[in-house]
Amino acid sequence: MNSFSGVPEPLTRLINELSKLPGIGPKSAQRLAFHLLRSSEETTKALVIAVEDMKKQVDLCSICFHITDKDPCQLCQDEERDESVLCVVEQALDVIVLERTGQYRGRYHVLQGVLNPMEGIGPEDLRISELLQRVQSGNIGEVIMATNPSLEGESTAMYVQRLLTPHGVRITRLARGLPSGADLEYTDEITLAHAFEGRQTF
Amino acid sequence: MNSFSGVPEPLTRLINELSKLPGIGPKSAQRLAFHLLRSSEETTKALVIAVEDMKKQVDLCSICFHITDKDPCQLCQDEERDESVLCVVEQALDVIVLERTGQYRGRYHVLQGVLNPMEGIGPEDLRISELLQRVQSGNIGEVIMATNPSLEGESTAMYVQRLLTPHGVRITRLARGLPSGADLEYTDEITLAHAFEGRQTF
Repeated sequence: MNSFSGVPEPLTRLINELSKLPGIGPKSAQRLAFHLLRSSEETTKALVIAVEDMKKQVDLCSICFHITDKDPCQLCQDEERDESVLCVVEQALDVIVLERTGQYRGRYHVLQGVLNPMEGIGPEDLRISELLQRVQSGNIGEVIMATNPSLEGESTAMYVQRLLTPHGVRITRLARGLPSGADLEYTDEITLAHAFEGRQTF
Repeated sequence: MNSFSGVPEPLTRLINELSKLPGIGPKSAQRLAFHLLRSSEETTKALVIAVEDMKKQVDLCSICFHITDKDPCQLCQDEERDESVLCVVEQALDVIVLERTGQYRGRYHVLQGVLNPMEGIGPEDLRISELLQRVQSGNIGEVIMATNPSLEGESTAMYVQRLLTPHGVRITRLARGLPSGADLEYTDEITLAHAFEGRQTF
């Protein structure tokens, strides 16, 4: 869309910037831009300030590498959480998702990615040495590997497991099996195989 | 989502602001916020500046009330466009859509809405008196009503038509009929009735 078709340049530029966002196509970008054009000064100001504050204030926790606006983060500072259990995840979003279940009361360690030799991501690009340090520094009894059950997630978990085993810590991983509400008919073979392997007494 | 579930407050605030946008649910807002968190400083800066510039620089043209960053707008300043024909539309987006066809080479008049007694929108809330002034001021030969074929659009067109008729200007409206690619089987009766009424020699 060029500015000759009756769209003022600043609006064209905003539409372009908005279409760079994930899941926002040209039509949605146009609709969003027109919405912002019609919105009150306060509404757009609040959005702009929210983006700026987030960029300024949100950083990684120096202990667990989860995102936070204070260091150490709330989860690392929470005295009621069990310091002896670490849940290792790929990214910040995973912490948020796990926290929403309310089931886990230990601490976290966010790797900031997964090993991916194809994309040149090695152990030194992740927060693996920091995890080793936390385990070496003492009172960790269990490390729960909660990387994704994908190729990269699994190999990252195996790498970490091999690295930590000499340090005498118990290493577990999240259970594999049928997801809640699944239909056997539509379940892939790998999931079914895991479900068989991990079968429990009824 | 509260900040206790491991989401820093500035991120929660950004997610809230983003979910206020049309078509952005809580999940998309979260995805967009995390995308912005991971984006470079330049990327988010460009977006923020685009929003601010748009709010600062885009205003209504004092002649046709289309959106513009210079007054009068490009369309009103374009000497090659026919000054004697005015196309009357409801909103700025309609100008953009019509311009995209490249079929129309006259000028525009954006009403900034439609008459809607249920919502208390009367003629004084729209740019109708300004339209009358443009017609009275002289050399307009034709006014094309291009409001939407909805109840409100039609009654607004009829109101404007009655207002302008005494001033001896030719008043037309966009053709009603079958849209391109339509299927008679699935076409509503009103459209079919319009298509019969407006039938043309083959």
